[in-house]
Amino acid sequence: MADSDGVLFANESFYRALAGGATAMMDDLWSRKAPVACIHPGWAPLGDRQSVVASWRRILAQPNRPAIECLLPEAYLLGDVAMVICYEKIGDNYLIATNLFRREGQNWKMVHHQAGPVAEPADTPTPDDAAVH
Amino acid sequence: MADSDGVLFANESFYRALAGGATAMMDDLWSRKAPVACIHPGWAPLGDRQSVVASWRRILAQPNRPAIECLLPEAYLLGDVAMVICYEKIGDNYLIATNLFRREGQNWKMVHHQAGPVAEPADTPTPDDAAVH
Repeated sequence: MADSDGVLFANESFYRALAGGATAMMDDLWSRKAPVACIHPGWAPLGDRQSVVASWRRILAQPNRPAIECLLPEAYLLGDVAMVICYEKIGDNYLIATNLFRREGQNWKMVHHQAGPVAEPADTPTPDDAAVH
Repeated sequence: MADSDGVLFANESFYRALAGGATAMMDDLWSRKAPVACIHPGWAPLGDRQSVVASWRRILAQPNRPAIECLLPEAYLLGDVAMVICYEKIGDNYLIATNLFRREGQNWKMVHHQAGPVAEPADTPTPDDAAVH
């Protein structure tokens, strides 16, 4: 699998875990070998795996959380690390996110996520619009 | 120089360029070899070097822009890529930023920046409070 496909697949898996409330899948997506961090919108940064995974577990446990959709993902390949920048549509609101991945064997494991508020994208995006840099 | 020192030094250089309005220094900080991106608070993402550097040039050219200070930088080492998460104090407001760097020879070159709103940090930070993960 090309690096770009692998990274975009890992990014999709992250949003599938989020959309489906899949706690074990979310846990497995995050690296156990590298330092990890996460910045939820407006939150102080979380700087260790235990805090990061626990934060997602709390988010996934919310019974009335709105649907989330990843739009316009763009992969940036940096060797054994890669990032995906994408919009997150949550109800009627949009966030813009950076997701950072690290190559571990055949997989790309998540090492960082930051999301913050953004206006609705100017393009009419679909989940299949992916670009590679 | 240890990787952590090199990455934190590159991060400091970025904020020195910002504070000092140093356009050429800012241009030089960004990688010319790898894909780069930048997400200013609330903006759509910029996905190529020309747009990213032009955006900083416009920011640096603003005559009344408020002072910016980097606080509580924390470095995360991922091999030939590293990130620094830090607070940005801009006037009375705070942003939280991810700055991503890539090793190029002896230097760490910037490949991504995302900043978004955050509350004032709970700790009383100083610019010298740095941590390494």
